[in-house]
Amino acid sequence: MLVTDLDTPCAVVDLDVMEANLRRCQSYLDGAGIALRPHIKTHKIPEFAHLQLRLGARGINCQKLGEAEVMVEAGITDILLTYNIVGQVKLDRLVALAHRADMKVVADSPEVVDGLSDAMHRAGLILPVLVECETGAQRCGVVGADAVAALAQRIARSPGLHFLGLMTYPRFNTVAETAARLTEARDACHRAGLDVEVISNGGTPDLYRAHEAGIATEHRPGTYIYSDRSLVETKAYGGYDDCALRVHATVVSRPAQDRCVIDAGSKSLSSDLLGLTGHGRIVEHPEWQIAALSEEHGHVHVPPGAATPRIGERVSIIPNHVCVVSNLHGRIHAARGGRMEIYHDVAARGKMQ
Amino acid sequence: MLVTDLDTPCAVVDLDVMEANLRRCQSYLDGAGIALRPHIKTHKIPEFAHLQLRLGARGINCQKLGEAEVMVEAGITDILLTYNIVGQVKLDRLVALAHRADMKVVADSPEVVDGLSDAMHRAGLILPVLVECETGAQRCGVVGADAVAALAQRIARSPGLHFLGLMTYPRFNTVAETAARLTEARDACHRAGLDVEVISNGGTPDLYRAHEAGIATEHRPGTYIYSDRSLVETKAYGGYDDCALRVHATVVSRPAQDRCVIDAGSKSLSSDLLGLTGHGRIVEHPEWQIAALSEEHGHVHVPPGAATPRIGERVSIIPNHVCVVSNLHGRIHAARGGRMEIYHDVAARGKMQ
Repeated sequence: MLVTDLDTPCAVVDLDVMEANLRRCQSYLDGAGIALRPHIKTHKIPEFAHLQLRLGARGINCQKLGEAEVMVEAGITDILLTYNIVGQVKLDRLVALAHRADMKVVADSPEVVDGLSDAMHRAGLILPVLVECETGAQRCGVVGADAVAALAQRIARSPGLHFLGLMTYPRFNTVAETAARLTEARDACHRAGLDVEVISNGGTPDLYRAHEAGIATEHRPGTYIYSDRSLVETKAYGGYDDCALRVHATVVSRPAQDRCVIDAGSKSLSSDLLGLTGHGRIVEHPEWQIAALSEEHGHVHVPPGAATPRIGERVSIIPNHVCVVSNLHGRIHAARGGRMEIYHDVAARGKMQ
Repeated sequence: MLVTDLDTPCAVVDLDVMEANLRRCQSYLDGAGIALRPHIKTHKIPEFAHLQLRLGARGINCQKLGEAEVMVEAGITDILLTYNIVGQVKLDRLVALAHRADMKVVADSPEVVDGLSDAMHRAGLILPVLVECETGAQRCGVVGADAVAALAQRIARSPGLHFLGLMTYPRFNTVAETAARLTEARDACHRAGLDVEVISNGGTPDLYRAHEAGIATEHRPGTYIYSDRSLVETKAYGGYDDCALRVHATVVSRPAQDRCVIDAGSKSLSSDLLGLTGHGRIVEHPEWQIAALSEEHGHVHVPPGAATPRIGERVSIIPNHVCVVSNLHGRIHAARGGRMEIYHDVAARGKMQ
């Protein structure tokens, strides 16, 4: 069966391209002496996480407890959860996971540290915790080296917790600044008498500049497995030939000469623009522009001189942001050279808690 | 159990508000002599579709075959599918549905009509078909009254099909123009000797101006059941008190005085802006601004003088676009006065084919 026999819209991964992405990254980080801890939020598929581990990854990175629960059930036990765990319901789930797997989490405030400590101490467990450091992304993370060291000391003193090190999610194209802030934070921890066993950096953008930083002990790329239009267009990672996942779609309407409608809308591509113009690259007709999305309609502008769309014609689209596409599709079809090989349910899809 | 005992992020519907929205719409359209055919894409929940029918709706509107399959399995049999059905796999599914339910579909091209005719004729069925008319929304739809009449004649002549009437999805705030185009199209059909039994208009924006148009025989609003920030801010429908669905979230980080992070990101709110600034309204603190979303993080700007966020604090958010929120959440919690009553699985969630 060919991928063109699949009904549309659907998400299809080329396994040859995907495996090359995985091997290239593992080989590069091996050479740089940096451990690979892939973020599974991009694929959310236990089979692909196992493949990453077989190729040499140290463990995996999850963002939500629900993702970690799926991966532990699938037999994966070395998990870093890079999210502040807040509230008793979630702390109880974390305790249940820590009984079964080698869990590590992050924290960026005394409130989060104290909640973790209370839950782990009562459960008779010791949980390794990294301090999340703000290095420019302006999301979570402790601001300033002294504050990082103070929170690290609080972790080290807290029953039920072990201070493991530092973690950050960096801003793109700030390799030197990120390294400088992590170095300041590490040095402040050293001055406070603390070991810093792990320094965990992240992101697929700047992945292949990880050796320049010279401080991280592990890297947590996610999108490198599939890649997407945003990474290519911002020159952050690879080219279009390295994009392993495409959303297949069908032309369902051609109301006028200069436009047609495809059956992939925001329910299959998401509405994430990530600063780009257009909602994805149509591989067969890059000159066609996906100008807007409704939920079930892709509004395609066909410029003068471009090929004329035919109703029933199939196209395949490299999405702007592939992680959110994984979260929309219940199933990912896997193929080689256009021939169907297997499908995988996206087992950790929609795990928002 | 109170809704504030639910873990976050989660989607909670206030049934009193929702039922008031449903009754108000049914009563208004009853008074205007227009049939109500609610679009279930907003809720995707069979229980709510049955409630709409019990309150007086003529039937339901689905966008995708997968949604219709869920609704037929739940015992609902009067279904208008407002999407061009293209390709043999989908035509076979439509035949299977038409054997079990009173299906009606739309078409806007000879290719779609011929595909429907071939499939239905071979199955020994007669399928009612409406011509989708372009009336300003620039999505699908035949452009121009003469072209509408020509396609209607093709349907009327096609074995296995019955020409039922006209359908449009209108542009907001163009009630008179939409009515004028539908009138021209109807008159052209009449001149061609065709009956036009049904004229189906849609949309929650302008819902309460349906009586002004004076031509549609039925209306297909979807979002009116929950409403959302987009409808309120564009003054298209009701106020914030009419918004029945909120996404509950928790403050998980407060890295600086002027910002905090909540655990609702694009995976629970979607990244749809619909032209608005900010990614939803925080009911408890409307002065806080959801300035950006990552997948699992809501980046909240806290302006000077606003209340200080506490880590662990709960907030509830009226989303920009509620239909896409339904598609992200596997389950909707239903409450009255803040007290949990039931939950419903979003059975037609993610049905993109």
